[in-house]
Amino acid sequence: MNSHWFKQVKFVMVQTSHCGNIGAAARALKTMNFSQLALVNPKNYNVEDAKISLSDEAVARASSAADVLENAQIYSTIEEAIADCQFVVGASARNRSMPWPLKDARNTCIDLAKIIKSDQKIAILFGRESSGLSNEELSLCDAHVQIPANEEYSSLNIASAMQVLAYELRTQLMDTTITAVDFEPLASAKQNELFYEHLEKTLQKIGFLDQHNPRMLMQKFRRLFAKAKLETTEMNILRGTLSKIDSKIENK
Amino acid sequence: MNSHWFKQVKFVMVQTSHCGNIGAAARALKTMNFSQLALVNPKNYNVEDAKISLSDEAVARASSAADVLENAQIYSTIEEAIADCQFVVGASARNRSMPWPLKDARNTCIDLAKIIKSDQKIAILFGRESSGLSNEELSLCDAHVQIPANEEYSSLNIASAMQVLAYELRTQLMDTTITAVDFEPLASAKQNELFYEHLEKTLQKIGFLDQHNPRMLMQKFRRLFAKAKLETTEMNILRGTLSKIDSKIENK
Repeated sequence: MNSHWFKQVKFVMVQTSHCGNIGAAARALKTMNFSQLALVNPKNYNVEDAKISLSDEAVARASSAADVLENAQIYSTIEEAIADCQFVVGASARNRSMPWPLKDARNTCIDLAKIIKSDQKIAILFGRESSGLSNEELSLCDAHVQIPANEEYSSLNIASAMQVLAYELRTQLMDTTITAVDFEPLASAKQNELFYEHLEKTLQKIGFLDQHNPRMLMQKFRRLFAKAKLETTEMNILRGTLSKIDSKIENK
Repeated sequence: MNSHWFKQVKFVMVQTSHCGNIGAAARALKTMNFSQLALVNPKNYNVEDAKISLSDEAVARASSAADVLENAQIYSTIEEAIADCQFVVGASARNRSMPWPLKDARNTCIDLAKIIKSDQKIAILFGRESSGLSNEELSLCDAHVQIPANEEYSSLNIASAMQVLAYELRTQLMDTTITAVDFEPLASAKQNELFYEHLEKTLQKIGFLDQHNPRMLMQKFRRLFAKAKLETTEMNILRGTLSKIDSKIENK
């Protein structure tokens, strides 16, 4: 078992309300050999100097996974939490109208295992207990994952959903028939975000994007590039192209 | 989807201590289309007239699966809970010295899906939060199942373990390449127990089993027949053989 694979996986909980669930999530991860837990704006937690003050309930439900809980990283935005990750998957309970790449837990984890075994860092995002991830948050992801469930009641407890995905990902990582794919390093979420910022500005400069009537244009671009899974070298080409356009316009 | 398949599966929780876990288990089952929950001697529950008085915590953690919780069946022994089941699997967290058939979650659920699709009833047993199932309880099972986990910390929360197995079993039931196998009806757990009682008595009569020095003999027989997965017709042959031996001895 390559233990570094498991460290390349970050489980990100967005605005979790109940600290008991955070404790239960820490336990779920540890049983499956994972250790990287990230919390984005956890509610009902005392965040002091980027350290969390652990509630009794969180500690109790973490059981013997207090180390995972104590080492959890706290962020104020999703963008910061995923900045160093080359591939980001968002857990989506409901069927959205968003036409993003969507696979079930098993097929997603087969994809992820290949990416991880190719030495890339990945993140899996989990939304609020009540309302999941917003469409805007889901658009930060490269792909969406759904745990197949009862159509009449598909709401898994958040720690249970993390347990299922951790179990499934562990199974695929341990499967020796799933091997690294030969691809170039992927752009990180941070590089992607910088690219989208650049793209948005340039589109405004050339007058294709109207700030007052954006027509979902940026979301459509995000989807397009999410499907392409940009490599770092491709990203450099795109950024270079944008810079060239910028300077052409400015020198006109 | 054949909804009756899901009703042929009974999840049995043995002496669960925390009612919050029973509520969470009900939710886990419902999200995966299962509904049959059986409780053997639940602790900290008021059992009146075989009805449980639901605690606030259990109801809260069941979320919208209160129907599964309310319809849970209460038993005072495992034998009663599994009496109508043709195949019984026990969840085993630790590696035991017991040489019982043992498979991981995925392969167990492939087996179970075939049995269920062949119209047999099955049960999955889950032990106490602290100590799991005893060896004696595990010997009531036809096979054992283990969720592959971190060797240094393999203790999943009981509701999380049920979520994983429910997810895995649902996945295999939905897999149309896994079909019914052509076998005769299997003996139920009740029929098996009656057989073992009969066998034990006959072994004593013929002087092969010494009550004061049983040498694990019955457990070895249980293992032998568990591996054979006795059909009802085979069971009748065995019972007939025992009766013949009995009458021979008595008429001597």
